[in-house]
Amino acid sequence: MSFSRLISGIKKMNNPTVAGLDPKLDFIPEHIKNKSFSEYGETLAGAADALLQFNIGLIDALCDIVPAVKPQSAYYEMYGFEGVKTLAKTIEYAKSKGMFVIVDGKRNDIGPTASAYAAAYLGETAVGGGKLSAFGADALTVNGYLGTDGLTPFTDICKANDKGIFILVKTSNKSSGELQDKNLDDKTVYEFMGQICENLGADTVDEYGYSAVGAVVGATYPEQLTELRKKLPHTFFLVPGYGAQGGGAAGLRGAFDENGLGAVVNSSRAIMCAYKTENAPGEAFAEAARREALRMRDDINANI
Amino acid sequence: MSFSRLISGIKKMNNPTVAGLDPKLDFIPEHIKNKSFSEYGETLAGAADALLQFNIGLIDALCDIVPAVKPQSAYYEMYGFEGVKTLAKTIEYAKSKGMFVIVDGKRNDIGPTASAYAAAYLGETAVGGGKLSAFGADALTVNGYLGTDGLTPFTDICKANDKGIFILVKTSNKSSGELQDKNLDDKTVYEFMGQICENLGADTVDEYGYSAVGAVVGATYPEQLTELRKKLPHTFFLVPGYGAQGGGAAGLRGAFDENGLGAVVNSSRAIMCAYKTENAPGEAFAEAARREALRMRDDINANI
Repeated sequence: MSFSRLISGIKKMNNPTVAGLDPKLDFIPEHIKNKSFSEYGETLAGAADALLQFNIGLIDALCDIVPAVKPQSAYYEMYGFEGVKTLAKTIEYAKSKGMFVIVDGKRNDIGPTASAYAAAYLGETAVGGGKLSAFGADALTVNGYLGTDGLTPFTDICKANDKGIFILVKTSNKSSGELQDKNLDDKTVYEFMGQICENLGADTVDEYGYSAVGAVVGATYPEQLTELRKKLPHTFFLVPGYGAQGGGAAGLRGAFDENGLGAVVNSSRAIMCAYKTENAPGEAFAEAARREALRMRDDINANI
Repeated sequence: MSFSRLISGIKKMNNPTVAGLDPKLDFIPEHIKNKSFSEYGETLAGAADALLQFNIGLIDALCDIVPAVKPQSAYYEMYGFEGVKTLAKTIEYAKSKGMFVIVDGKRNDIGPTASAYAAAYLGETAVGGGKLSAFGADALTVNGYLGTDGLTPFTDICKANDKGIFILVKTSNKSSGELQDKNLDDKTVYEFMGQICENLGADTVDEYGYSAVGAVVGATYPEQLTELRKKLPHTFFLVPGYGAQGGGAAGLRGAFDENGLGAVVNSSRAIMCAYKTENAPGEAFAEAARREALRMRDDINANI
C-alpha cells in the first residue's frame, strides 16, 4: 500500500534520496544535444530527444543505487507536447529499471478535474471499450489550496491503484512563509495543510507506519521539518531544497523517524550537473551523476 | 497590455463569457469518436484526435460570438502526450480564429520552475540558437500557495509578452472555504491572495483599469465576488462555476464594475454538451453549443 514500494526501495539501497530529473537544455552535455539536433533540427522535437537521451543516461547510472526519480513536469512542458512525450517515456524507462517515479506536477483543481489529473498520472483513462495508462507514475505532487474535495479524487485513485500523493505543506522557497507561516485560528497554514495529509491518509497506513498521503516539506526549513515530523507521524515527507537551494544534511535530521525512515530527500541540479561541478567532460555526465548521488547518500546517512 | 485584448473582445462582442474546452470523451458525439477511432484505433492518439475535431467544431461555431476559450489542461493530460498535442493544436486553432486563449492549468512552483511553466504557456523556450513557442497561450491560471517568488516569474513574462495570469483566490468548489475562508491576522486567506493580485499587477494597469494579474473567483460565492470586486479594483476576474456548478446569473452582478466590465464568466459543460441537453443528434453539437453560448450571453448581460 501507499509508499511501501518506495520505502522498501529506500531500505534495500540504504538510500533515502530521490534524483530530480529537471533536464533543462543548459544542463545537457553538448554531444547529446548535437546528436539530437542533427537528427531533428533545433526544434522542440530535437530538444525533447536530447532530454530523453540525457534522462536515460542518468537512470542507467543511478537505478541500482537510488530508489526513485522525480521528473519535474515544468521542464518537459516548456518543450511542448514533444517534451511531454519525453516525460512519458522517461517515466516508462525509469519504471522498467525498477525505480519509483514521482511526477512533480503540483496539480490541483476542483473535484471532477482533479479526477482527470489523477487518472492522467496515477490511474487510467477510459477510451472506447478499454482503459489506457496516460503517464503511469507511482506518485504525484499536489497543491491543496482548494481544500479536501479537490484532494479526495487523488486519494481515491491512490487507494485503488497503490499509488501516493505528496501535498504541498511547507515549500522550500524563500517566500513560502508569506502564506504558509501565517496563523489561522489555532495553527499555521502549513500545520493546517499537514493535518489534512494525516486525515486524508488515515485509512492507508502501511507496514512502515506511513500513509499514501505524503507532504512536501523543504530542507531549507529544518525547524518546521522537525516540528512536522512530530505532529504528522503517518505522513511521509518529500524533501526538496537539499544542495542547490541551500538545505544542508544536518538540517535534515528532524525529517526522519527513530528508524531512519519517514522522508525521501530530493536533489536535482547537483546530480544532473555533477559533471560541470567536477569540470569533467560532458561524455562523463553519467559517472559524475553517480558519484554525486553516492556522496549525497553518504552525507545524508551520516546525519540521520 | 495585460487583459486589454480580452476586454476589447468582450466589448466588441458584448459578451463577457469564455467557453471552457474540457473535452472528456463522454461529451463528444459518436460520429466524431467513430471516425477518429477508425483512423487511429481505440488509442490515446484516437481519443486525442476526437478531442481536436470536437474542439475545432466548437471554435468554428463560437469564434464570432464568444471572445475567449479556456481549455482545461487536465482533460488533455488524461489522454497522455497525444492529448497534450491536441491542447497545443487547440490553442493554435483558437488563436487563428481571433480568440483569446486562457489555459486553465493552475500551475505553481518555486521560482526557477515557475519560470519554466511561464515559458511553456506564455513565453518562449530557448532551443539551440533560437527561441520557440511551446504552447503560446494568452493567459494561464496559477496557484499562489507558494507566495510571491513563485508568482513573479509569471508576471515578468506577462509584462514582457503582453500576457496575463489569473491567480486562484476564491475557488468555486464546495470545500474552498476550508482554507480560503479562514482568518489570518486581519483578513481571510482569499482576501490575502486577492491583495497579492492587486500588488503584483500594480504596474500593469491597462486603459480599462485592469492589470495583467487577474483572480479566479467562483460564481458559486456571490457575496465574495461582490466583496472582492470592491476590494480589488484593478484585478480582472475569471469566474468559473456558472451553470453546471450551480452559480446563477443574478449572483454574478457583483463581479462587474459600473461599466459592466471586470469579469469573464466561464461555462464548459453546458456549452459542450448543449446537444445532449437539447436531445439533438450529435451531428448538431456545434449549432447547439452556439445556441447555449448566446443564451448564456443574454442571461448574463440581463443581470449586469
